Amino acid sequence: MTATTPAHDVDAAVASAAAVAALVEEAGPRVRASALCAAADALDDGADALVALAGAETSLREARLRSELRRTTFQLRFFAGIVEAGEYLEVAIDHADPDWPPAPRPDLRRMLVPLGPALVFTASNFPFAFSVAGGDTAAAIAAGCPVVVKAHSGHPRLSDATAELVSAALEGAGLPPGTLSVVHGRDAGLRAIVDPRVRVASFTGSQEAGRLLFDLAAGRPDPIPFYGELGSLNPVFVTRAALARREEEIAQGYVGSFTLDAGQFCTKPGIVLVPRESSLAERVAGLSGASDGAAMLNDRCRASYCDAVAALGAHESVSVLLAGSVSAGGAVTPSVLATSVEDLVADPEGIVSECFGPATLLVYYDREEQLLEAAESFTGELTATVHAEPGEPILEQLLPRLRGIAGRVLWNGWPTGVAVTWAMQHGGPYPAATARETSVGAAGIGRFLRPVTYQGFPDALLPEALREDNPLGLPRRVDGVLRPATR
Amino acid sequence: MTATTPAHDVDAAVASAAAVAALVEEAGPRVRASALCAAADALDDGADALVALAGAETSLREARLRSELRRTTFQLRFFAGIVEAGEYLEVAIDHADPDWPPAPRPDLRRMLVPLGPALVFTASNFPFAFSVAGGDTAAAIAAGCPVVVKAHSGHPRLSDATAELVSAALEGAGLPPGTLSVVHGRDAGLRAIVDPRVRVASFTGSQEAGRLLFDLAAGRPDPIPFYGELGSLNPVFVTRAALARREEEIAQGYVGSFTLDAGQFCTKPGIVLVPRESSLAERVAGLSGASDGAAMLNDRCRASYCDAVAALGAHESVSVLLAGSVSAGGAVTPSVLATSVEDLVADPEGIVSECFGPATLLVYYDREEQLLEAAESFTGELTATVHAEPGEPILEQLLPRLRGIAGRVLWNGWPTGVAVTWAMQHGGPYPAATARETSVGAAGIGRFLRPVTYQGFPDALLPEALREDNPLGLPRRVDGVLRPATR
Repeated sequence: MTATTPAHDVDAAVASAAAVAALVEEAGPRVRASALCAAADALDDGADALVALAGAETSLREARLRSELRRTTFQLRFFAGIVEAGEYLEVAIDHADPDWPPAPRPDLRRMLVPLGPALVFTASNFPFAFSVAGGDTAAAIAAGCPVVVKAHSGHPRLSDATAELVSAALEGAGLPPGTLSVVHGRDAGLRAIVDPRVRVASFTGSQEAGRLLFDLAAGRPDPIPFYGELGSLNPVFVTRAALARREEEIAQGYVGSFTLDAGQFCTKPGIVLVPRESSLAERVAGLSGASDGAAMLNDRCRASYCDAVAALGAHESVSVLLAGSVSAGGAVTPSVLATSVEDLVADPEGIVSECFGPATLLVYYDREEQLLEAAESFTGELTATVHAEPGEPILEQLLPRLRGIAGRVLWNGWPTGVAVTWAMQHGGPYPAATARETSVGAAGIGRFLRPVTYQGFPDALLPEALREDNPLGLPRRVDGVLRPATR
Repeated sequence: MTATTPAHDVDAAVASAAAVAALVEEAGPRVRASALCAAADALDDGADALVALAGAETSLREARLRSELRRTTFQLRFFAGIVEAGEYLEVAIDHADPDWPPAPRPDLRRMLVPLGPALVFTASNFPFAFSVAGGDTAAAIAAGCPVVVKAHSGHPRLSDATAELVSAALEGAGLPPGTLSVVHGRDAGLRAIVDPRVRVASFTGSQEAGRLLFDLAAGRPDPIPFYGELGSLNPVFVTRAALARREEEIAQGYVGSFTLDAGQFCTKPGIVLVPRESSLAERVAGLSGASDGAAMLNDRCRASYCDAVAALGAHESVSVLLAGSVSAGGAVTPSVLATSVEDLVADPEGIVSECFGPATLLVYYDREEQLLEAAESFTGELTATVHAEPGEPILEQLLPRLRGIAGRVLWNGWPTGVAVTWAMQHGGPYPAATARETSVGAAGIGRFLRPVTYQGFPDALLPEALREDNPLGLPRRVDGVLRPATR
C-alpha cells in the first residue's frame, strides 16, 4: 500500500477525480457539508488508532497529536459551515440598466465555481492538519473539487488509514467514489502535477521541493494555480522597553515557542532581535539547556536539521551559545546561536536560513533604528512579531515594514499556533507563499474556486445561487449593494 | 518621447514607483478616490485632442473612441467609489476566544493591503480603456499601488499625452510624483518585469507575448502575480430551435458583433456552431459582403491578421464562404469561413486559432449532441455563448460545459461589449487568462492586493480599518458574521 504508486495508478486516481468532478459539485452544498462532518466524525471515532499510528510514524507526542486531530476535525466542520452559509460563492447580481455608461448594460450575475481536480501535497510536520484530511482537502471538497493527495513519505500508513476512513465517510454521505484518493512517492507527485486533468495544486514543505513543483505547474502548456508554502524565519523584534517590563515572560515564551515539538513548525521564531546589553540571550540559553530534547519527525528531518544548524554555526559571524546534541535514542536538544545586526545586514543570504528544528538565532542590536535595517533583510515571511510597549516611537516605522514582509503580524505574542478562523492569514510574500491565498482559515476555500459571470439568462436556466428570488437565501451584492443572508 | 525608453530611465521609473509606494497607500482612500476622479475630469477636459490623437494613431472611428473614453472615465470614477466604500478591504475581525478549538484563539484582524509597484502592459485595441488610464491603472491606484505603464507601440503619442494629463491630475489631488509613469519599447517591458521592485504585472495581448512575460514573471527568484489575458475564440452555439424562431436577428447580431471595429476585440465571436441545413451561413456571408470594410489598428495588426486568415482558409477542412480583401487605402473587408464539427473535433489545434480581425468561422453540425463534443475542443475562453430556446434538453449538458471553459457565459446575446460593473468577469481558464482575477469590473482591484492579519494588537496601533469602533464605517465580518457598513 505505501510503496511508490505506479504511474498507471496515479493516472487512474487523477482520472477518477476528473470523472467525478461534476458530481462532487452537483452534490450541492448540503451534501458536501454533511460529507465533511461525516469525515470529521469518522476521524473522531478512529482517533485512538490514528493517533497511535501517527505517534509511531512521526515521534510526535500523544497530547500534541490528539490536539492536532481535534483541530483537524474542527476544520472539517468549520468548512462544512462555510459551504452551508454560501457566502464563499461571492454572488453579485447587476440587473440590466439601459442608462449605464457608456452603453446599456445587460443582466450580469457572477459567482465562484470549483476549479476541478485538486492535487494536495501534504506536510511532514502535521500528519493530520496538513495531511490527507487537512485544511486543503477540507477546503477543496467544500469548494466542490475532488482531491488527489500526494502523501508525505513521513507518515504513509497513517495517510492510507486516514484516506480509508474519510473516503468511506464521504461516500456514505453521498459523494461519489474517487472524490478522495492518495498517491505515494516523489514520482507520483511529479507525474500528477503535469497531468492536464489536474486543475490546481497546493503544497506545504521545503523551498527546494516547493519551487520544483511551482516551476512544473507554471511551465505546463496550461499553467495552473500552485499554492505553495515554502518556509519562513518568522523574525521577532524585541525593544528595550518590552524587555525592561517583561524579560522573564519573554524568555519563557520564546523558549516555549521555538522548542515546541522540537521546533518543527513553519512558524517557529527562527530569528529574534534583542538589545545587545540585555541578558535575554543567556536566559534563553539557560532555559533551553534544561530541555531533555525530543525526537524529530524522522531520520531525514534530523539529518537536514543537523546540517543546517552546523552550517549556520560555522558562519564566521555567528557564535554558538548553546550547542544542542542528539542522544543515542535520537532526542535532539535545542541550539541557541547569536550574531549581530551589522552581520545580518551584511550577509542576509548567509544568515537568514531556515533550520527546521529546535534552533534559534539571536541578533544583537545597539540602536533601535537598526531594527528597521534588519527588517529589510527579510523578503517573505509567514509571520513577523514585535515585542514592545505601546507608544514607542520606533513602532511608527517598524510596523509598516513588518506588514510589508509578512502575512501575519503579531504584537507581544509568539507565532507558533495558527488558529482556524475567518480572519486568519497563513501565507506571505514569496517564499513564505507562492500565491496570496491562505492555507489556514476560512479564506482558504478561495484556492479552489474561480469566478464565472452569466449574462442575460432566463431565471430558470441560472444556477440556484443566482436566481432572482434567492432560493438559497445567500448574502449577495445586488447592483453594488451588499444584502445580508435571508435565512 | 516615444522612442524606446533607455534602461536607466526604466530603472528610474520603477525606482520612483517603489519610492512612493508607501505614500500612495498612506494617502488614504479619500485622496486616492479624488485623485481618480481628477484624472477622469482631466481626460474629459482633454477629450477632443486625445480622441484626435487616438484616431490618427489607431484608425479607430471617432464615435467609438469617444465612447471608449467615456467608458474609461466612468471606470476611473467607478473605482473611486469602490475605494471610498472600502468593502474591497475584506475586513474580518475575530475576537479572542478562550474556548476556541483546539486552543484559545487570540484576537485576529485581517484586511487586504496593496502589493506595491505594478507594471501594466497595455493593449493595442483599446487605446483608452486598456491603456495608460485604463482599468488596471485605475484598479491599481485605487488599491494603493503606483503604476509603471508599458505603453503599446500602436499608440505611443497618445500614451504620453494621457500620462501627462493623468499624472498632473493625480499630483494635483495629492498623490506623489512618480505614482504613474510610462515606458516604451519591448526591451523596457522585458527589463521591468524582472525588476525586484515590481510586485505585480498585468497584460492584455497575444498569447505569444503574454506567455513570454508570464514565464519571466514566474521564473523570477521571487515569482510575482502575472495577470495576463492572452486571447479567446468566444465560441457560440446556435440550436435549431433558436434559428427557427430568430434566424434574421441572429444573422444580424452575429455580423454586427464579428465585424465591429474590424473585429479587433478579444471578445469577437470567432467560431459559431450552426445546423448544417440552415441558411445562416449564406445569410452571414451576404450581410458581411455588403461591408465597406475598415482600416485596422496598424500595419502589423493587418499583416498578422491576413496571415492568420490565409492559414485558416488553407486548412484542408476549411472552406472560404466570403474572402475579404484589403483596399488600396488599407480597409479590410470581412472574411467568412466554414468547416464541420467532425473536422473541428478531429483537429482542434489546427482549427481553433484566433484571427484578430474581421473573420469568423462557421462550424456545421448535424446532431445537437455534437455541440457537447465541440465544447471539448476549447480549453480556455473569455466567453461562451448559447443561442437557444428555454427548455431545450441539450442545455442541461451544454451549459455546464460552457461554464467549464469560459469566464462569462451568455444567453442569446453577443460577446462583444464588456460592461464595467460589480458582477462582470473578464477572464477564464488559460489561455483566456493566466490567473482568475478579472481585468474588467469591480473585482479587478483584487489583482493588486494581498491579505495581512494582525494578531493581538492594542487598538491604537491597528490600521483604522481594523479598529474596534470602526471609524471608517466599513462593512466587516465580525466573528464570522457579516456586518453592513455603518455610514
